[in-house]
Amino acid sequence: MNETAASVQVRPIHQEAAILAAKRLDGLIKPLGSLGGLEEMAIRLAGIYGTQRPHIGRKKIIVMAADHGVTAEGVASAPKAFTAIQTRAILKGMTGVGVLARRAGADLTVVDIGVDADLNDPGLVQEKIRYGAGNILQEDAMTRQEALQAIDCGIRMVREAGKEDYTLLGIGEMGIGNTTPTAAIVHALRPEIETAALIGKGAGLTEEALKHKIKVVREAVARRAPDPADPLDVLQKVGGLEIAGMAGCCLGAAEQGLPMVIDGVISMAAAYLAWKIEPGVLAYLFASHCSAEPAYRVMAEEMGMNPPLHLHMRLGEGSGCPLMFRLMEDSCAVLEEMATFEEINTSGEFLVDIRE
Amino acid sequence: MNETAASVQVRPIHQEAAILAAKRLDGLIKPLGSLGGLEEMAIRLAGIYGTQRPHIGRKKIIVMAADHGVTAEGVASAPKAFTAIQTRAILKGMTGVGVLARRAGADLTVVDIGVDADLNDPGLVQEKIRYGAGNILQEDAMTRQEALQAIDCGIRMVREAGKEDYTLLGIGEMGIGNTTPTAAIVHALRPEIETAALIGKGAGLTEEALKHKIKVVREAVARRAPDPADPLDVLQKVGGLEIAGMAGCCLGAAEQGLPMVIDGVISMAAAYLAWKIEPGVLAYLFASHCSAEPAYRVMAEEMGMNPPLHLHMRLGEGSGCPLMFRLMEDSCAVLEEMATFEEINTSGEFLVDIRE
Repeated sequence: MNETAASVQVRPIHQEAAILAAKRLDGLIKPLGSLGGLEEMAIRLAGIYGTQRPHIGRKKIIVMAADHGVTAEGVASAPKAFTAIQTRAILKGMTGVGVLARRAGADLTVVDIGVDADLNDPGLVQEKIRYGAGNILQEDAMTRQEALQAIDCGIRMVREAGKEDYTLLGIGEMGIGNTTPTAAIVHALRPEIETAALIGKGAGLTEEALKHKIKVVREAVARRAPDPADPLDVLQKVGGLEIAGMAGCCLGAAEQGLPMVIDGVISMAAAYLAWKIEPGVLAYLFASHCSAEPAYRVMAEEMGMNPPLHLHMRLGEGSGCPLMFRLMEDSCAVLEEMATFEEINTSGEFLVDIRE
Repeated sequence: MNETAASVQVRPIHQEAAILAAKRLDGLIKPLGSLGGLEEMAIRLAGIYGTQRPHIGRKKIIVMAADHGVTAEGVASAPKAFTAIQTRAILKGMTGVGVLARRAGADLTVVDIGVDADLNDPGLVQEKIRYGAGNILQEDAMTRQEALQAIDCGIRMVREAGKEDYTLLGIGEMGIGNTTPTAAIVHALRPEIETAALIGKGAGLTEEALKHKIKVVREAVARRAPDPADPLDVLQKVGGLEIAGMAGCCLGAAEQGLPMVIDGVISMAAAYLAWKIEPGVLAYLFASHCSAEPAYRVMAEEMGMNPPLHLHMRLGEGSGCPLMFRLMEDSCAVLEEMATFEEINTSGEFLVDIRE
């Protein structure tokens, strides 16, 4: 596999469709722009789908699962074995994302891209690249080759989804300890920010454990010394397999012309890396909820993204995606179903030009 | 009608049910508290409904429509006649709230509590108290008697909804110019805040019009001099009929033991007044989206409310309520459908105590 595995041909946005959608929104019976974020979503979807009346059909969340050797440093509040357990539970639809995805009519695809256990549950997508990322305090997370392979896996997952007529995708992850490589990625790429300002309590650390985690992140990045100008180098040295896989999903979405919803801080780090690799992906990315982890805001701000949901969620698994899916469907319904000023005037019922 | 018309018997919250729901949430296969706002919603609903497994059934948004004499001062971007037009369009389901309520499976009740026109569309609830509130720069918005009547109307609407087995309610409004009395209410009750810091561009004012609006609000409150210790006095002198009606809805929700969702800044002012009249209503109120109007945050912060949706919407009509309804339903689904640690261990499939 060569370096081009991480490069995709970004499908151009249909600017004309977006403009026509914006025009229609301005003609609906409401003050201009008063549906705010919903209007922005509808316009972006029009541009992505290439139609002024976008419609969302099949929806899917791709959950990438992998382990992290750095859990040996005591950076996670749950034992590493939980990655395998929870991956199987996600597959069975028993977890948070399962419940919320059902509510939103979205399918789940669960990918073992690097769980440190042999899983053979029916339905699980077997794409294991290695048994967990290396302990980034002691060694690289993976080789460059493995990082490319993981990205390629994400791209392939999205290509398959595209073939199966999915029109809206989301990414999520399961990987005990993965807020540590996430913080390391952001620390490596934004060295000017104080490390402590990037790191939260993950799924539930004590104050003391938090201090330790900050130290581990700082030390890991110092030792691995990834090149901040090379996002692939950062991913390989201090990232994780599921993060690489999700970055691939973002690249694949841009290639396939599919909207891609981001969940919390870990999937945001994947999107951030994908954006650093290929800036064109941004037009296809949608933030869902604002993670409680401070690194989330750092990345979202740099990318100019405003997550509409503020629920201080920190579950992961892609659990924010189904909530966002429905808002995006709402935005299409507004565009499609609200009456225009022209329509209500033509109907003869409301013979007033309320724009006078 | 006497002053007791504005007082209701607040139904007590079932603390035990809330505690049991919180306990169940802590036993679900996720890190403690990791579903954040969704968990808080589920716990609150358990306490309101008095069951550890809350379920949301029928849902309704009550839209109160009324005019405002203060539009004569050029404080609104749309002509006053638009109140009647849009009220009729809301009734027909052609507007933003109609589309979004359909998507969420919620019904709409549209109440003419003070539109300055004779409307007799089928389905419209006729509760007109007067043809619009007075121009608050020149006269009181209404008499104390009228304010009590409007509050009583809201209480009755909720009592009727309760009889019809509605389990979740929302409030919304239509009234051209009503961000002005809203700002006046907040200015009267929070005189220490600079007026300019309370007022935004409403549905779409120019910079110049904004300055004028700030002046009108300041002057109206100075002239009417409502007693900040008497929320009813504030409502009567610088409020509006739809605001009084929605305040009544909030009081009615506390009486009937029904959760009540707030939309934007105008319905928040109604909730704020209801809370000043009867602090017990707070346990029944749910913020939905964070309005773009600065006065919204002032009130929400004082009441300790955190709206989960950040969509910079400024449409009104109750359009934020259906979006929140679904998040509340999601919260119940999480509580009901997610597996517990106990369940997955008992099933024998995952023989690991992941809480070790």
